[in-house]
Amino acid sequence: MIRAGVVGATGYTGFELICLLARHPEAELAFATARSDAGKRLSALYPTPLDITLQRLEEVDLGSVDVLFLALPHAAAAEVAVQALAAGTRVVDLSADFRLRDADVYSAWYNHRHPAPELLGEAVYGLTEWSREDVRGARLVANPGCYPTSILLATAPLLQAGLLEGATIIADSKSGVSGAGRAAKIGSLFAEVSENLKPYSIGHSHRHVAEIEQEMAALASKAPRGLLFSPHLLPVTRGILSTIYVPLPGGWGAKQLHALYRETYAAEPFIWLLPEGETATLAHTVNTNRCAISLHPVPERDQLILVSTIDNLVKGAAGQAVQNMNVMFGMDERAGLL
Amino acid sequence: MIRAGVVGATGYTGFELICLLARHPEAELAFATARSDAGKRLSALYPTPLDITLQRLEEVDLGSVDVLFLALPHAAAAEVAVQALAAGTRVVDLSADFRLRDADVYSAWYNHRHPAPELLGEAVYGLTEWSREDVRGARLVANPGCYPTSILLATAPLLQAGLLEGATIIADSKSGVSGAGRAAKIGSLFAEVSENLKPYSIGHSHRHVAEIEQEMAALASKAPRGLLFSPHLLPVTRGILSTIYVPLPGGWGAKQLHALYRETYAAEPFIWLLPEGETATLAHTVNTNRCAISLHPVPERDQLILVSTIDNLVKGAAGQAVQNMNVMFGMDERAGLL
Amino acid sequence: MIRAGVVGATGYTGFELICLLARHPEAELAFATARSDAGKRLSALYPTPLDITLQRLEEVDLGSVDVLFLALPHAAAAEVAVQALAAGTRVVDLSADFRLRDADVYSAWYNHRHPAPELLGEAVYGLTEWSREDVRGARLVANPGCYPTSILLATAPLLQAGLLEGATIIADSKSGVSGAGRAAKIGSLFAEVSENLKPYSIGHSHRHVAEIEQEMAALASKAPRGLLFSPHLLPVTRGILSTIYVPLPGGWGAKQLHALYRETYAAEPFIWLLPEGETATLAHTVNTNRCAISLHPVPERDQLILVSTIDNLVKGAAGQAVQNMNVMFGMDERAGLL
Amino acid sequence: MIRAGVVGATGYTGFELICLLARHPEAELAFATARSDAGKRLSALYPTPLDITLQRLEEVDLGSVDVLFLALPHAAAAEVAVQALAAGTRVVDLSADFRLRDADVYSAWYNHRHPAPELLGEAVYGLTEWSREDVRGARLVANPGCYPTSILLATAPLLQAGLLEGATIIADSKSGVSGAGRAAKIGSLFAEVSENLKPYSIGHSHRHVAEIEQEMAALASKAPRGLLFSPHLLPVTRGILSTIYVPLPGGWGAKQLHALYRETYAAEPFIWLLPEGETATLAHTVNTNRCAISLHPVPERDQLILVSTIDNLVKGAAGQAVQNMNVMFGMDERAGLL
Repeated sequence: MIRAGVVGATGYTGFELICLLARHPEAELAFATARSDAGKRLSALYPTPLDITLQRLEEVDLGSVDVLFLALPHAAAAEVAVQALAAGTRVVDLSADFRLRDADVYSAWYNHRHPAPELLGEAVYGLTEWSREDVRGARLVANPGCYPTSILLATAPLLQAGLLEGATIIADSKSGVSGAGRAAKIGSLFAEVSENLKPYSIGHSHRHVAEIEQEMAALASKAPRGLLFSPHLLPVTRGILSTIYVPLPGGWGAKQLHALYRETYAAEPFIWLLPEGETATLAHTVNTNRCAISLHPVPERDQLILVSTIDNLVKGAAGQAVQNMNVMFGMDERAGLL
Repeated sequence: MIRAGVVGATGYTGFELICLLARHPEAELAFATARSDAGKRLSALYPTPLDITLQRLEEVDLGSVDVLFLALPHAAAAEVAVQALAAGTRVVDLSADFRLRDADVYSAWYNHRHPAPELLGEAVYGLTEWSREDVRGARLVANPGCYPTSILLATAPLLQAGLLEGATIIADSKSGVSGAGRAAKIGSLFAEVSENLKPYSIGHSHRHVAEIEQEMAALASKAPRGLLFSPHLLPVTRGILSTIYVPLPGGWGAKQLHALYRETYAAEPFIWLLPEGETATLAHTVNTNRCAISLHPVPERDQLILVSTIDNLVKGAAGQAVQNMNVMFGMDERAGLL
Repeated sequence: MIRAGVVGATGYTGFELICLLARHPEAELAFATARSDAGKRLSALYPTPLDITLQRLEEVDLGSVDVLFLALPHAAAAEVAVQALAAGTRVVDLSADFRLRDADVYSAWYNHRHPAPELLGEAVYGLTEWSREDVRGARLVANPGCYPTSILLATAPLLQAGLLEGATIIADSKSGVSGAGRAAKIGSLFAEVSENLKPYSIGHSHRHVAEIEQEMAALASKAPRGLLFSPHLLPVTRGILSTIYVPLPGGWGAKQLHALYRETYAAEPFIWLLPEGETATLAHTVNTNRCAISLHPVPERDQLILVSTIDNLVKGAAGQAVQNMNVMFGMDERAGLL
Repeated sequence: MIRAGVVGATGYTGFELICLLARHPEAELAFATARSDAGKRLSALYPTPLDITLQRLEEVDLGSVDVLFLALPHAAAAEVAVQALAAGTRVVDLSADFRLRDADVYSAWYNHRHPAPELLGEAVYGLTEWSREDVRGARLVANPGCYPTSILLATAPLLQAGLLEGATIIADSKSGVSGAGRAAKIGSLFAEVSENLKPYSIGHSHRHVAEIEQEMAALASKAPRGLLFSPHLLPVTRGILSTIYVPLPGGWGAKQLHALYRETYAAEPFIWLLPEGETATLAHTVNTNRCAISLHPVPERDQLILVSTIDNLVKGAAGQAVQNMNVMFGMDERAGLL
């Protein structure tokens, strides 16, 4: 039985992690920490029958668990990661702290110095389907962002095949509100979000741009030019749908494209490639660890549209974190996720 | 042209007031104040084309307007009311400060001393349909709460006719989230409210119980025993629906009941009595100043069910406030509200 | 491995049954039938990765399975039940056909003769917590309605203890739209339901009244007078919340009431009695087979409010059907439901 | 007082027209027709206090009104238009029947012969801001589609200035469910739409593609290559938001772009150009006849993002129809629309 700790258990991602661990057949929750809510029972915060009391970070022994999940804001996460690694505990960090490989890029996008630049070389970007081998041996896994997961899984087969050379990739993404976290913000109130749709940070300014462009470059056999990224806040709780526009590879039709994706993802338990003629929707993946992908070539305009959906709290956060844990400890990658 | 000021313009009620005043043919907004947002344009807070800059309360002249609307939290409202009245300005207070006639009852329910008990005798409870004559001459109108408006308008004809003597009136009310104000609270987040329904303060503990029981006693020709009140938080932005259970007056049938209500409310522009066989829904009144009422006698169980709906921000707050202003200044009661 | 068939697989309840069976450790789906959609893959109707092709009822062998679930409209269900029982297959009927024990009562509420009155004596009303022994040996289980499940589980301890003698029980219930089925009706359209709340069939006219009053009488050691029932259509997909008003048993306080419920439901895996001071919400039970119950005595008014929530598609339909199957075949009652 | 008739009054667009006409100061409703609901009061279909009885088309005198609004499905609309014009009545057709100028293009996209090709030359495409002069004298106005309105108003200034020569314009559009009409379809049910997002007819296959490309060609001083169009079904009732991607005109910055739009739309009462740094959302325009536009140049990628929102039932249908009527009859263009 793998023993796991969750640091930052009161946000939506932390709570999702706890729920996933509670039904994991080979892992168990050793402790869950919180800051202002330490000392409370989890059921005081969420309508859950789980009987868990939140602890302060200071009172738990980071070395007493096999793996530590960090569901903290950036900067705060890195500091705890350092302590945990020093105590010999492997870490899956769900913040952005170890996703960017270059400390200068990090500080340009996050507006502060990186708290532990010495770990950047070692951290493994945990997009499981594309980094399984590295995750297996990793001490420190940087769990990908939600938008990056949805966009990278959809474009990776094309990038790897060198089919997006020089291309500007346009990702028009729509996300549920839980992606903004369980913070009391006016912009996340029901009365602001319901019956509304709100684009934000569109163009080239959202922090996930740096992460996505870095990983696209890493995945591509021939480099694309870069990303145009437009996130929108949807009136739903969970889920991300990305509608992605790329140049249609010359001479490629629907059959060939499907063959490429089918082959690439043949053995993947969590990639759901839809058949020709079907379109991915949020409902395909909400409450699952799957990523649904559909392919829509538009020869009239020499363009290819990719639609990709995930549950932002599962495959886009806690689910992928558990998937990474499963790989790190040699368990069935699907354990606790079906 | 009546000149109006709005104090506390950034909440949902304050903004609704501003929108109503903007299209009022005989009133105009002289100023709108805010605390932390003073100095900002209103369009920085709401997606509105109105060109209004929020001012600090300290920089406006309370005596320069004909009427002042107070959309402040309780306690804070009373203090501004005192100043405005001293400056010769009539006041419509949308807080709870002047709704209860007894300062001791107030302090028992609101947990602090009343800031201006000397004004309690003068304040008029502005349930317009039932206090029109008093509102006309009032210097200080206590605008009713949203739940009380929906429950009192539905039960008043029975109370006045002495048909609920000794009865326990059960009001099962359901309210949209805007009733909780535009405050950044976890409980009002989209991800908490959507796909949920949450009873709160049920039984005899919500602050509106005191207000409703006081006014029921005042309206009744023969006193009821009292109220049982269960508010529920609905996943909608606007609207209150109250399902109200009272004993069926002996020998009364649907026709008689409809006749009583029709007669009582014959001349009322904002009371919408539905015909037999129809049932009031939120959609009947959202975005209007109307109160829709339907009557459902259940002779098999000697009970009568009343259904009543309003828009909590309009008839339950800003709309009724404007209706009261219209009465106070001798304008057409419907001005700006159709 | 128990082999199960689902007749009427394309509605929300039928699909929920299929999903529950797909993850049941000791049961498997042998066939799923549909009428107009026979021949289609299930994934053409729902965004599901399950690889199931719908069959016509005429082409499946009802005798080839251990248990048959009927998710059909009333009348249609009874006819298939007759055939299945004749073929030696045990039946869990999710329609209303075998819930009422008296064929005359049935025809009065459902407006047609009962298709198989000879089976009424044998059918077991499957409110599992209260009929476990009878379900165990039953050939034919009448799975309770969604509203009845939520109301009966909440009131049964009081009824059994004889504490509601002569009482009129008021159930103000609110249901998600999936309760209306997957039928293309104007009233279930998003644009009609969203931002709305709609009471319907209130008083003593909804068909579930007959079922609830019958079972209340059966559960009660001292008979109540009867039910007043007000269903409301909520803008949510899943879940029922019932706010129930009964006379407070003389001299009973919160502690005693909690003790009664705790004792009554001590061994029940799916009854979640909330501690004093907490209130049940839809979020407590959505997507689970649980029923959450909270108790709110109001001594000021000699009343007791009970709040009860379930997921109408799970504990209110497919989940309870699986729970009944588990009991019928001697499996762990929780199998496939946690 | 202009007398108006509405044919097809029971859909969302027809009802919206009736509501707009009811508060129009210079127009009045003479009749409203329906097919299967003829003879019913409007309040039997919608929660409205308007006292209107629906008539059969056969029983009204099309020549008795000044203007006839057709809110019918395509094909059906053209037939009534022919009759009305013959009776000397001017027509605003909200269907697609007279939007395409070429009968062959029409039959290719709508799969049937055009019922009145002889009128195609005369019909005026009523995107009011861009065809005001022609609308003024028109006998027959083809009211634009909802998606086309949102996309054309946002791109027209660039097209007219010749800045999109040869460009592929990508419009990623998101629409509320009311756009699908008040038809009882599974895909429009609350339980299917809520908590979901569904792309449909993406690429180059939605019927509005033909309309948009035709009008883009007409507006452009230098022709673009064409359109890539991805509609998505949003879990909201009203509103369309289009996120539009075009090449950034060489050397153009935010200031220049804003100047171009400001100048182009300076006198337009219903175009709301947002200031630099703000982004259009659905909430900017729901329940209004406005189109909100925001401009987002992305020099890093040589792209320009336009965001455009309208209320699909108002500016995207009934509101623009009334705006066209106002122009046709020489009234204030804003009458009844503020």
